Amino acid sequence: MSAAGDPALASPRVRARRRRRRGEILAAALRAFRDQGYHATTLDDLAAQLDVRKAALYHYFPDKEAILYACHRESLLEVGRLIAEARTRYDSAAEQLAHVIREHVRVMTDTLQGSPFAFDVAALSPAHQRRVIAARDTYERQLREIIEAGVRRGEFARVSPKIAVFAILGAINWIARWYRPDGPVRGPELGQQFAQHLVGGVTCHRRP
Amino acid sequence: MSAAGDPALASPRVRARRRRRRGEILAAALRAFRDQGYHATTLDDLAAQLDVRKAALYHYFPDKEAILYACHRESLLEVGRLIAEARTRYDSAAEQLAHVIREHVRVMTDTLQGSPFAFDVAALSPAHQRRVIAARDTYERQLREIIEAGVRRGEFARVSPKIAVFAILGAINWIARWYRPDGPVRGPELGQQFAQHLVGGVTCHRRP
Repeated sequence: MSAAGDPALASPRVRARRRRRRGEILAAALRAFRDQGYHATTLDDLAAQLDVRKAALYHYFPDKEAILYACHRESLLEVGRLIAEARTRYDSAAEQLAHVIREHVRVMTDTLQGSPFAFDVAALSPAHQRRVIAARDTYERQLREIIEAGVRRGEFARVSPKIAVFAILGAINWIARWYRPDGPVRGPELGQQFAQHLVGGVTCHRRP
Repeated sequence: MSAAGDPALASPRVRARRRRRRGEILAAALRAFRDQGYHATTLDDLAAQLDVRKAALYHYFPDKEAILYACHRESLLEVGRLIAEARTRYDSAAEQLAHVIREHVRVMTDTLQGSPFAFDVAALSPAHQRRVIAARDTYERQLREIIEAGVRRGEFARVSPKIAVFAILGAINWIARWYRPDGPVRGPELGQQFAQHLVGGVTCHRRP
């Protein structure tokens, strides 16, 4: 147990502060991994950016790999929630798919700030790699199910759901290759156009 | 001048053989870079795969970086030709764009055999990096021009051509992340669906 004590026994105020602090560490880590690369970033860099001693980071994470895994885990949790949200809010496959695309783009541009770490599982421990890959596989399957339902109900053209998901995730994942938070393209505009483009393309080509 | 003599003075038959041999070296290199990674591949590996002595490779390329650059250069030349081909063959922006997407997918699946080297310019010399990046920029601009023309003529919705190109190139470049020549997805089917999906999405969402 760290010097900060057992988190489960801490007061709500202390727990809220710890959660906030943890979020700040992850945000600083994402920026550093994006700008310098994961391997070139040290815990000293992160401590300097956060203006804390390196020892303070150890209250939250045992090492750099644990920070990288937490970044993966939080963004995958966020993306996983989008599927449930889309299904609760919307009935049509087109609206569900548009919601997931818009919000996944938001995760890429806001939460991840264009960090490309999301592709790179090689730096994770084997156990963490397995969990990240399993979570991604689940997400891909859920996206395919939305498209399958749209094809079945005649909302979408008779596309291969597998290929359609590859096109959609390719467009979204590629954001990390070119997007910069201070660049000319705004996140919400990007999410809106991607949703129209990528949903429009499976909705419309049944009318040739 | 290599032991093979001045290529400009060689007979047509000899020149044809040299071209074929050069193509075989590039194809073997692409497979090796894809399967083992560029850095892990040696000229000895390539010579062994081609069943020639390493010295024979030096008739064609001075070193491994020259082979990588030739791979980049040939695929960029091929992709660049698609734009001219699309403009010659088709009048509508939709047909031009569909042609470029279908054929660019073919370059990814057939010529490059799913090799992801196309993203990775870091292994090239600075001069070669600049040329590859300049050729890519030209291709992106030409794609934007096709979409701009489609928007101007009312063939396409009022999309941002810049964002539309990012979606299209994201979907296509991502192929290298998942495509395997011996996998379940066939190249022509992939090109056809990508063209319908990605052209349909800019053509159709003007009709809400």
